[in-house]
Amino acid sequence: MPINTFSFIQRSDGFSLFADERLVLSHFESAPFLYMGKGEAHIEMRHGNFEIEDEIRELCPLAQWEIEQSGKVVRLWSEGGRWAVAIRPEIVDGRLVVHFSHEKTAVSETAERDSFSKGNIRVRFSLPARPAEHVYGCGEQFSYFDLRGRKFPIWTSEQGVGRNKSTRVTLEADLADHAGGDYWWTFFPQPTFVSSDCYWAHMDSSAYSVFDFRRETSHEILCWELPHALVFGQAESMPAVLEDLTAYFGRQPLLPEWVYKGVILGIQGGTEVCQRKLDKARAAGVPVAGIWAQDWEGINITSFGQRLRWNWVWNPERYPSLDTAIKAWQKEGVRFLVYANCYVGKGWSLCEEASSKGYLVKNAHGEDYYVDFGEFDAGIVDLTNPDAFNWYAQVLARSIIEFGASGWMADFGEYLPTDAVLFDGTPALLAHNLWPALWARCNYEAVRSAKAEGEVLYFMRAGFTGSQRWCPMMWAGDQNVDWSNDDGLPSAVRAALGLAMSGHGLHHSDIGGYTTLFGMRRTKELFMRWAEQAAFSPLMRTHEGNRPAENWQFDSDEETLAHLARMGRVHVLLADYLKACVAENAARGMPVMRPLFLHYPEDDQVWTIDNEYLLGADLLVAPVMDEGARERTVHFPGDVWLDFWTGESMWESRLAGDLVVKAPIGKPPVFMRADSSWKGLFYSASNLVP
Amino acid sequence: MPINTFSFIQRSDGFSLFADERLVLSHFESAPFLYMGKGEAHIEMRHGNFEIEDEIRELCPLAQWEIEQSGKVVRLWSEGGRWAVAIRPEIVDGRLVVHFSHEKTAVSETAERDSFSKGNIRVRFSLPARPAEHVYGCGEQFSYFDLRGRKFPIWTSEQGVGRNKSTRVTLEADLADHAGGDYWWTFFPQPTFVSSDCYWAHMDSSAYSVFDFRRETSHEILCWELPHALVFGQAESMPAVLEDLTAYFGRQPLLPEWVYKGVILGIQGGTEVCQRKLDKARAAGVPVAGIWAQDWEGINITSFGQRLRWNWVWNPERYPSLDTAIKAWQKEGVRFLVYANCYVGKGWSLCEEASSKGYLVKNAHGEDYYVDFGEFDAGIVDLTNPDAFNWYAQVLARSIIEFGASGWMADFGEYLPTDAVLFDGTPALLAHNLWPALWARCNYEAVRSAKAEGEVLYFMRAGFTGSQRWCPMMWAGDQNVDWSNDDGLPSAVRAALGLAMSGHGLHHSDIGGYTTLFGMRRTKELFMRWAEQAAFSPLMRTHEGNRPAENWQFDSDEETLAHLARMGRVHVLLADYLKACVAENAARGMPVMRPLFLHYPEDDQVWTIDNEYLLGADLLVAPVMDEGARERTVHFPGDVWLDFWTGESMWESRLAGDLVVKAPIGKPPVFMRADSSWKGLFYSASNLVP
Repeated sequence: MPINTFSFIQRSDGFSLFADERLVLSHFESAPFLYMGKGEAHIEMRHGNFEIEDEIRELCPLAQWEIEQSGKVVRLWSEGGRWAVAIRPEIVDGRLVVHFSHEKTAVSETAERDSFSKGNIRVRFSLPARPAEHVYGCGEQFSYFDLRGRKFPIWTSEQGVGRNKSTRVTLEADLADHAGGDYWWTFFPQPTFVSSDCYWAHMDSSAYSVFDFRRETSHEILCWELPHALVFGQAESMPAVLEDLTAYFGRQPLLPEWVYKGVILGIQGGTEVCQRKLDKARAAGVPVAGIWAQDWEGINITSFGQRLRWNWVWNPERYPSLDTAIKAWQKEGVRFLVYANCYVGKGWSLCEEASSKGYLVKNAHGEDYYVDFGEFDAGIVDLTNPDAFNWYAQVLARSIIEFGASGWMADFGEYLPTDAVLFDGTPALLAHNLWPALWARCNYEAVRSAKAEGEVLYFMRAGFTGSQRWCPMMWAGDQNVDWSNDDGLPSAVRAALGLAMSGHGLHHSDIGGYTTLFGMRRTKELFMRWAEQAAFSPLMRTHEGNRPAENWQFDSDEETLAHLARMGRVHVLLADYLKACVAENAARGMPVMRPLFLHYPEDDQVWTIDNEYLLGADLLVAPVMDEGARERTVHFPGDVWLDFWTGESMWESRLAGDLVVKAPIGKPPVFMRADSSWKGLFYSASNLVP
Repeated sequence: MPINTFSFIQRSDGFSLFADERLVLSHFESAPFLYMGKGEAHIEMRHGNFEIEDEIRELCPLAQWEIEQSGKVVRLWSEGGRWAVAIRPEIVDGRLVVHFSHEKTAVSETAERDSFSKGNIRVRFSLPARPAEHVYGCGEQFSYFDLRGRKFPIWTSEQGVGRNKSTRVTLEADLADHAGGDYWWTFFPQPTFVSSDCYWAHMDSSAYSVFDFRRETSHEILCWELPHALVFGQAESMPAVLEDLTAYFGRQPLLPEWVYKGVILGIQGGTEVCQRKLDKARAAGVPVAGIWAQDWEGINITSFGQRLRWNWVWNPERYPSLDTAIKAWQKEGVRFLVYANCYVGKGWSLCEEASSKGYLVKNAHGEDYYVDFGEFDAGIVDLTNPDAFNWYAQVLARSIIEFGASGWMADFGEYLPTDAVLFDGTPALLAHNLWPALWARCNYEAVRSAKAEGEVLYFMRAGFTGSQRWCPMMWAGDQNVDWSNDDGLPSAVRAALGLAMSGHGLHHSDIGGYTTLFGMRRTKELFMRWAEQAAFSPLMRTHEGNRPAENWQFDSDEETLAHLARMGRVHVLLADYLKACVAENAARGMPVMRPLFLHYPEDDQVWTIDNEYLLGADLLVAPVMDEGARERTVHFPGDVWLDFWTGESMWESRLAGDLVVKAPIGKPPVFMRADSSWKGLFYSASNLVP
């Protein structure tokens, strides 16, 4: 059901734009479609946390309107012509692209024109909504899945240590370092949403914007520039909407084969530590796909915890003989993964090279802009400079891929200061959100140039429009090592589902979470429950957290090792199924972890469920995310569902409903569709578990 | 230097308005004086704490302009005439009153007109400023004295438990009950400021507004209605500015004679407790002017601490024989003071009477509006109903004044919910700020009708435009029992100075502070330092705090009693001087506690000093407000200053300067002007102290 045509319908008091039969936007003189004006942004960045205050200085209704003779263009202007915009819809590949452009006005003819391109302008418009409509997307949202009833600023940043001002952790972080976040803080925002009314809408702009879904009959968007365009797609079903959306943004490729071979163990401390922990894991029966050692380049101790030496080359002092060890491990089927990000630590070789070549982002005085990352400074490789971009891609290709690593965490991307000066002249205020996608593409280019597609895997936390195409795997960033709704395990599951609706279908999280501050400690139970969830996701990877000594680790006791071994083997035995899911994502944009409504849209309840998901079409996964819980309520969409572990029939109704099920540690609530063609595989996987 | 005339000066691109020679406002087509539009207020009240989010929906420049033939009226309108305003200046009593009125426009002719009177409109305008200008006032501001560099919303509310988001107390309060405040939270805001450039400006509106002093060359005001007028006064000196301002708003009368006789002891617990503590205080040599017993009407235990039974009549169970005790104490020269506020506790007699008479504020359904005051509910006497107003004034006159009390704390006034429905039809959003002044006038009426002027004294925490005339004495509300800048002793001193610049010259605070939560405990040292400051203020009064058992009290040990006795006797011996200061305030609006610049304007440094003050013209008071400090830096304005305690010459220069002086407990840094005619009195007062 592509869009074939658009039409403006004229009324005496305004007009409406239709995409085929669907109302796209309406303008009434008494309720204008568009407002324009100016604003002043007060932005303060501190360690990737942004305080943003927007002061609206002017906002005028563009109430006057005229449809051009051709019927293809509408002009809107404010009384007297102070602000004027032309709207030019176009059908492109079955989608409606509504182009916006400034018209000549009193304002555009003055010095104020300059501010047009600098994020000083304010544009507000609204799209029609139904009260009962659900809305998803806006990138990776951790606190809310259905976005209705709230507004979401689109701005990439640290997620905040705590993202709920009602929690002690958030307030402690605010008190200590203004580091507490809020419900909308995310590494990966995107000005795109999907409606339960089977359409999607994308705003083509990288400016700071606010998507406001609080109104009953309109979705409202405020943007700090006139967006280039709004893009709309529609389809007959939600899966078809996702297929169309992912065709537009690009899809993730297949994962390397080795990813399915087991758990990627997050280990730090040097070659010997890796060997010892690997041996211990294998001895306990843990299938190990890889070792991920973020400290391969050396470490840097700060008050936050152990941090890294931001110079992306092998450090033979901390990792003696790593080059030969990598080869040996690979022979045993164990890959080695490293770490890099888009900044280069001041005082180290890469930073010096970048600086001497003029490849670093500059400040207003034309000097290299060094950003405070918390007790150390780093330069930002200017990815808008093609030479710098290529140089950095080569650095990654050479020092990581050619060195022998099979993958890396491609961290960060959210810290571009808004007063930076960029090579290509893009105002930093507009480049800020672009950065994660540029950084993704730089990694992509490293892989391409090393001809390592399908062999290596990088995974990222930051994202923006474009990351769907340039980043093959996301991870959920820095969850707290707790059970909290906004920051713990539940937020990682929710993030996967929301990001799926933004067109990125491959997602995983640090098993056990990461952030360990203000008295938080990862418990054994949390680690085990998180591992259970990860087993039913496309990738299992552990992380020691920022303060390893304060956290329960995979090898903290035998029971934990045994539990991880069981979960890892289930995961490995599901490999063929997971591969099929990943292939479906690559082919049609059907995410691996799926909201229930993608397959059971007739069930009214599923539209807001964010604490269980479908793994592919045939497994219903309801992770236990409450401390101490040994049962949980599961919502069964109308189908026949068998217990994954016992084969017992749990639900046999075409009607949906809730059931409290037993959920002992080691056997999380997972259910298979009775008529799945994968039942044989599922049985063999679950039979493993005693 | 009254204002004699105004004139509009026309330019090709706009106009300016002058008051005599002073530029009052300027309009340029490229930088319009006025913007108008609409906003949506999101307001949530919880125990008098307000969360207010203002969403600007429209804001259009009124760039078009025309000076009427007469030269007396200017019209401003937005392009196309959507918004239009007439500006009519007028000289009244040597002041410039600039009247604003809506002109007929497209908007005013539609249904939107209704919103004009409901606080939905947004009006922004700016007044010219100099970068070096200082600004004071906006009511009782606790965190900042010079308001330049910040914006101040004008909205009466609880001050918040903690008013600085960087302090632990504020965050604990936020976490526990969303009760943490911010720097601008105050019981007594006012849309009025005084400039160091020797003029004052007042906005005649009770709407929520924001006074923004962050810009270098303009002061900006956002108001939720078109204000009725702006009023400007000017004079040749800052004291003359205050004289003009207080002539406009009204001044406070003289204080009753008994106020100067000693300390008012805050005591709770019944007649016997009062007698016992009074005896103990007098035995220790404390001169006692009165007993203030806020629990005279009975108590109500909540989790916050001991609270009161909100029914303003004598409770003979808690205070047996109070009627006769009052008479006996008065014979001994000790007055008895009680407590009341503008709410009536649900379930008690006054509330029932008010409800049955239809005197309570209503909700949208026409029912009595009961407000949650923290584990109990109370109705709001509708002071916009003349019958209710008079009834309540009579209640106070009868049950307090005729009962024999010599005064009362007239508490609260900040809790009018914005969705309340009032007798006189004023939208609650516009009545909210008016309430403290209405409540003040009700107390005034009680005194007047009982013919008790000059005999009784009520003191209030809430205020607004009008409180200068209707309330004879303010107190600083609920400081934390600590030394913190925003919430402790320093904030009480600052509040006195800021309120002085808003035209209210009689101010005091609870000795030792009030709010005792989240582990706070009033220390002995804090109590003593606070008492030292209070001795050099117009009124000394103690308060046990909300959790008396957790606080150091005046009678907690002999040393404290002796210290209070000394400070009280100094205060009493200063009585004639204090009376002269109070008389100056009543006659000319010269506050008792004065910012240094009122007498030493040639000293550039004094314009931002808020931690020392002049008591009258002849005493320089530098309270010790740091825990553990036994010396402090004092700024001496250019004059000859003698140590108050020793008569020793401390400063003899016509130049100003700083000096670190000794400040042992019991001898706070106080200095007298060498050529004061009160030196004899000062010597006799200070000689007291061993």
